Amino acid sequence: MQKIMLAHGGGGQEMNDLINGLIFKTFNNEILSQNNDSAILNLSGKLAFSTDSFVVSPIKFAGGDIGKIAVCGTVNDLAMVGAKPKYLSCALIIEEGLDIAELKEILESIKSSADIARVSIVCGDTKVVSKGSCDKIFINTSGVGQIIKEAKVENLKIGAKILLSGDVGRHGAVILASRNELRLQSDLQSDCKPLNSVIEALFKAGIEPFSMRDATRGGLSAVLNEWAKACGYDIKINEENIAVSDEVMGICEMLGFEPYELANEGTFVLAIDPKDEIKALEILREFDSNANTIGEILDSNKGNVIIQNSYGASRFMEPPKGELLPRIC
Amino acid sequence: MQKIMLAHGGGGQEMNDLINGLIFKTFNNEILSQNNDSAILNLSGKLAFSTDSFVVSPIKFAGGDIGKIAVCGTVNDLAMVGAKPKYLSCALIIEEGLDIAELKEILESIKSSADIARVSIVCGDTKVVSKGSCDKIFINTSGVGQIIKEAKVENLKIGAKILLSGDVGRHGAVILASRNELRLQSDLQSDCKPLNSVIEALFKAGIEPFSMRDATRGGLSAVLNEWAKACGYDIKINEENIAVSDEVMGICEMLGFEPYELANEGTFVLAIDPKDEIKALEILREFDSNANTIGEILDSNKGNVIIQNSYGASRFMEPPKGELLPRIC
Repeated sequence: MQKIMLAHGGGGQEMNDLINGLIFKTFNNEILSQNNDSAILNLSGKLAFSTDSFVVSPIKFAGGDIGKIAVCGTVNDLAMVGAKPKYLSCALIIEEGLDIAELKEILESIKSSADIARVSIVCGDTKVVSKGSCDKIFINTSGVGQIIKEAKVENLKIGAKILLSGDVGRHGAVILASRNELRLQSDLQSDCKPLNSVIEALFKAGIEPFSMRDATRGGLSAVLNEWAKACGYDIKINEENIAVSDEVMGICEMLGFEPYELANEGTFVLAIDPKDEIKALEILREFDSNANTIGEILDSNKGNVIIQNSYGASRFMEPPKGELLPRIC
Repeated sequence: MQKIMLAHGGGGQEMNDLINGLIFKTFNNEILSQNNDSAILNLSGKLAFSTDSFVVSPIKFAGGDIGKIAVCGTVNDLAMVGAKPKYLSCALIIEEGLDIAELKEILESIKSSADIARVSIVCGDTKVVSKGSCDKIFINTSGVGQIIKEAKVENLKIGAKILLSGDVGRHGAVILASRNELRLQSDLQSDCKPLNSVIEALFKAGIEPFSMRDATRGGLSAVLNEWAKACGYDIKINEENIAVSDEVMGICEMLGFEPYELANEGTFVLAIDPKDEIKALEILREFDSNANTIGEILDSNKGNVIIQNSYGASRFMEPPKGELLPRIC
């Protein structure tokens, strides 16, 4: 089996062979193949620009791999500000000794995820580090998108309804389970997926969310606490409206985690005008039947997140703290 | 001394403290501080988009560090296609245990290099991996720029003069020397610097290079061979016109390297119309007195690089091959 050698990152013949023979061939598009120092794009107006490095371990997990998550992560960051994702970069840091077959699989996963999200990989970079200097492969994707209807934290306002696009905690639980050799008899899959289609559907229906955020590291809890802090108002959440699968709940109970703090990679939170609530829910549920309204922004300015359970008892949903779960994405 | 912990990458309170207290404060600009999932930019027309991951070892070297090279590398990739670099992203992969003081120094180097290059860091990402899963710190920068006058490989043509903006091999030689504990009594410094100012000066003088490329991994030899292969014509180079410092020559002779294959991080090759040669040289020399015309594109289509020494003897300058020098950038 062919392996990645240091020479594949040296800037010489071997690197050219890898780039032309494998990477350009897999990503296959005109802009990339021009092989200039930068990609040339035609875009205008307000643009969104985002970056994420991915170090997820293991690199393959139920429902995805590091290639898929690298595309979805950046596509979703662009979509969350109300942009149509258009172009991605892809920078690889590869550990010497990685099987080229494994790299090929990852590149194909990047390509098929990019196709689903309707984005092109237009520029890239390949570095190889000696054995032991990184763990298999790290991927950075950065992205550029065209703003359709800008959504931002500053738009949060009193009375806004808080909607959640699906059940929470699946990505985090899958990674947890894979690390702890639980060998669960479970079909649990990461929620890893691009979110630009559902957001385009909302826009098409005339719905302009005040703010959106995908609940990645730190989970639902991190998003809500950041929002409450940013706008300065309290956010009230009804716990019984947050969907959590039995498998996720089971893993959380077994390992002492909080499902609201587990990472998601294809689930997002929206703050919208109450008049749009019913229509928005209808659209969200076309993509995920677990979508629900989970709360609202209150007219009280302490900047807390208050969660009420089905018996009517309230507590604060604290911002996550400590060593949640390293290398989740 | 405070150290980076896994919790600094977990998405919780510690990560927020690091990002708000150190990173945002250092990079300090309005777009970044909005803290949305993507930066919102106002740009239009033809844009350049580029990415590079930096894994240079050691992270500090004579004339620069991983922060400076991370900014210069992407700024230069944008400048090489004829763009004015505008916005950069900055994604950090940090090894658990890195001194926060050392991180602070790197962030300050990124900021001061960005100031010199007149670009802003508008979005970022921070990941922490456990001790042993990466080597201190890896940095990805991606960048967006506005095309002023597009330069590309396709523009190369017969008769074009090949100019070189300075002496070659300094960055590679500095890294080599630092790894081999040569402890040379030398003032040799990496050429690491942003090139956008010199290119803007060329544009201001009405000079539109056909093509430009900074001679990074694989050095001058890689650029010339890529060009010869891309345009299909032979390129003839006069060896005596290529500036190489005595220190670089000494290190190459000692360690068996070829100066034309050593990486540069602030030296570039231009192909220009012969009518612009004198004016272009005048401008290049305002920035670096070692700039020179080193050759031309011939009317013969074998796609080779032919180098002629001062005695009139010719040989092929072969494309670099093998394990040049890992983790040079």
